[in-house]
Amino acid sequence: MTRTYDLIVIGAGPVGENVADYAQKRGLSAVIVESELVGGECSYWACIPSKAMLRPGFALDGARRVAGAAEAVTGTLDAAAVLRRRDSFVHDWDDGSQVDWLKGAGIDLVRGHGRITGVRTVEVTTPDGATVELVATAAVAVATGSAALLPDVPGLLETDPWTSREATEAKSVPRSLAILGGGTVGAEMATAYTALGSEVTLLARSTVLSALEPFAGELVTDQLRSAGATVKTGVSAVRAERTASGVTLELDDGTSVTADELLVATGRRPRTDDLGLGSVGLEDGSWLDVDDTLLVRAGTNDGDPWLYATGDVNRRALLTHQGKYQGRAAGEAIAARARGRRIDDGRFGLHVASADDGAVPQVTFTDPEVASVGRTEKSAREAGLPVRVVDYDLGAVAGSSLAADGYTGRARLVVDAEREVVLGATFAGQDVAELLHSATIAVVGEVPLRRLWHAVPSYPTISEVWLRLLEEYGRPDA
Amino acid sequence: MTRTYDLIVIGAGPVGENVADYAQKRGLSAVIVESELVGGECSYWACIPSKAMLRPGFALDGARRVAGAAEAVTGTLDAAAVLRRRDSFVHDWDDGSQVDWLKGAGIDLVRGHGRITGVRTVEVTTPDGATVELVATAAVAVATGSAALLPDVPGLLETDPWTSREATEAKSVPRSLAILGGGTVGAEMATAYTALGSEVTLLARSTVLSALEPFAGELVTDQLRSAGATVKTGVSAVRAERTASGVTLELDDGTSVTADELLVATGRRPRTDDLGLGSVGLEDGSWLDVDDTLLVRAGTNDGDPWLYATGDVNRRALLTHQGKYQGRAAGEAIAARARGRRIDDGRFGLHVASADDGAVPQVTFTDPEVASVGRTEKSAREAGLPVRVVDYDLGAVAGSSLAADGYTGRARLVVDAEREVVLGATFAGQDVAELLHSATIAVVGEVPLRRLWHAVPSYPTISEVWLRLLEEYGRPDA
Repeated sequence: MTRTYDLIVIGAGPVGENVADYAQKRGLSAVIVESELVGGECSYWACIPSKAMLRPGFALDGARRVAGAAEAVTGTLDAAAVLRRRDSFVHDWDDGSQVDWLKGAGIDLVRGHGRITGVRTVEVTTPDGATVELVATAAVAVATGSAALLPDVPGLLETDPWTSREATEAKSVPRSLAILGGGTVGAEMATAYTALGSEVTLLARSTVLSALEPFAGELVTDQLRSAGATVKTGVSAVRAERTASGVTLELDDGTSVTADELLVATGRRPRTDDLGLGSVGLEDGSWLDVDDTLLVRAGTNDGDPWLYATGDVNRRALLTHQGKYQGRAAGEAIAARARGRRIDDGRFGLHVASADDGAVPQVTFTDPEVASVGRTEKSAREAGLPVRVVDYDLGAVAGSSLAADGYTGRARLVVDAEREVVLGATFAGQDVAELLHSATIAVVGEVPLRRLWHAVPSYPTISEVWLRLLEEYGRPDA
Repeated sequence: MTRTYDLIVIGAGPVGENVADYAQKRGLSAVIVESELVGGECSYWACIPSKAMLRPGFALDGARRVAGAAEAVTGTLDAAAVLRRRDSFVHDWDDGSQVDWLKGAGIDLVRGHGRITGVRTVEVTTPDGATVELVATAAVAVATGSAALLPDVPGLLETDPWTSREATEAKSVPRSLAILGGGTVGAEMATAYTALGSEVTLLARSTVLSALEPFAGELVTDQLRSAGATVKTGVSAVRAERTASGVTLELDDGTSVTADELLVATGRRPRTDDLGLGSVGLEDGSWLDVDDTLLVRAGTNDGDPWLYATGDVNRRALLTHQGKYQGRAAGEAIAARARGRRIDDGRFGLHVASADDGAVPQVTFTDPEVASVGRTEKSAREAGLPVRVVDYDLGAVAGSSLAADGYTGRARLVVDAEREVVLGATFAGQDVAELLHSATIAVVGEVPLRRLWHAVPSYPTISEVWLRLLEEYGRPDA
């Protein structure tokens, strides 16, 4: 059986859904191939369940940190209720509603494992072992995402460790949990499981959240320790073993950690290992390098481009929202090329994901929350930009002190001192997640500092830190 | 005794402090005159105590609305603890720390009642009845703010009603409270006192929060009623009386309301009634009309301008943050004129408060919170702008549903359909306060919609509503 569509998308996560949806809206027919659940990693084993597990703890801490409300909190987090709430957010790992969405959007679904077999052709092995041949008239987009990458530690595989999947789908809270990896997944799951009552040990090769401004990881480390977790930085695992008493990790500092379960969160690998990339001259298992319109940079795209890669798989920014953003650009670009329309690939044009370079936002749902966008001081200096950095104590802002007694946090702007625009911003503190989009718009909009002085933060909100940061910098035109 | 300064500021609220501080930073000597507490209305009888009274209720509701956390909340708000926390935020109405700040900033303070006696001269009657003559070489800035305006209702004055002052400094919670006026003060205090256990009746002449987008007041009205308050709209008081059983208000619909206390929050009047305005050809008790550099539009400023008015008193935007913004512009303008420098009074220049026109942000701390900036649909249409409005259900955003079970809210963008920039935005929902500054920057920065598509909201936050609103509008360049 062969079916023909304008566009074939492999991977029905949020990213693939956006590619198909945006192309379809411009008149292309689209089919999407999915081997697991429609809705993808984010909906079932990442963003959604992790935030569902974290939010009750944050909400309860929010009450505990304000006199007057604190008196009403007499109990602790109800872990079973938290996990039930998580289950409802992942619809008990049933993708019916997402399938309905696809139908409503006019996008066909083929369940099974898709493999590229040549230019514009994909073969799907369905769950019952049958084969469906798909042919695209316009394009194939790979949106298969990423999976946990286990480091090469002797004995590790045999301990049957958790990855982000098991950590977000756990049916109960282990008495103790060791976490290898201090990045986003490690830090968030350390926060969640500590709040849920697990005895957590977080092990980071360098520091916690080392890709962000250093103060962010420092604040999170301090708070994890205050909450009862053990945090070890600058350590690597050298050997792992599971015994009757749990999993034991031997570390390169000569110590060891034993816990009921081990979560490994040391990195990601692209899910391209059985995708048929070899059939079009690409390497199985590799990340797919793309241009700003999400076209794969490869010989097969010379002359008559057809192969796109969106989301984690292109390694530009391993974040759901950024992958969806790429999906929108790719969907528009695929439709425009199919219709012979002009490609608007100038910076911040319709058909490009320009923000991937220097304007990627991220909220890390730790305590405190870390909301960051664009360049850190380090990355801006490494890029050779003329940088000036200003910091402000978030706890010194009226809105923060009203939000929580003893509020602790810090904010940083990274400024291009020649163009006098914001290159990056980081806010670390309770309830800063929604504050981030102000910085994202400032960075992407390239709004000059002299204009930002006229964007008045409402009083008394945490956002007033914007005024303080501008004052710290000094008024450009005064 | 006569003292000479470059600048005399009458009123040591946040607005006056900013005028003096910014002029002083540019090298001018400054004195500030204050008849009550340094720090002003906002610090002691408005923003700060009101938010301190509201936050514990919001924090507790935040926990109650999330399964897993809710189980830990067994008690109710501790009203006495809330009021003690409020007391600490107003430093028990002691302005010592604010006086220290003035000293540190190099600004002199004269306590007493200041009256203008002629061009650039102010006479202060000190608390001990002495007189201090102040002479300015450059400018006098009036920053005396506003006070509650009591409507002309027979018997009202004799009931000794609360105004915003008594509502925010109350030492105990009345068993019942009637509130006349459905604006910001009325709605916020109805929210606070309902949470604190008072039986509240809110009376609005039109609707609740009628200056904002209609859905905001509707959501707040619904929630007040759910929380146990009585809300009557479209009613006015015709007579008032205090008896042994409390204050009784007779309404124009023939009904009446009796409560232990009555809060009147029907409007504001400028605090200019005993300011000596007559000595320079202005009218006592009037609002002071100003230009964008905050110079009073009056004959006394012809040729040799000297008299400024900042904050509530000029009626441009009765909000602390906006008054402080005006104070910064005025401070810069006063210094620049004193030094004979060029005045940068183009739109969004250094010496103007351009944002007062069309870019004023406000967070109304009700349940739900209402965060708004710029034009409403109504005000944009009245201004003859080419308006397109898009709405989105905030409860349908993943970040919202994670934040609270059963999240209810709505968001609106008011767009200039020709220029394709945002003219205004309103978000009504839990935890939207910090989301506002994104819209403020978009409005003030005049960031085109086509660029805003590249400002990616982090997933899963409430800010994702930005993407949904842009999708509702449709992509301009596609």
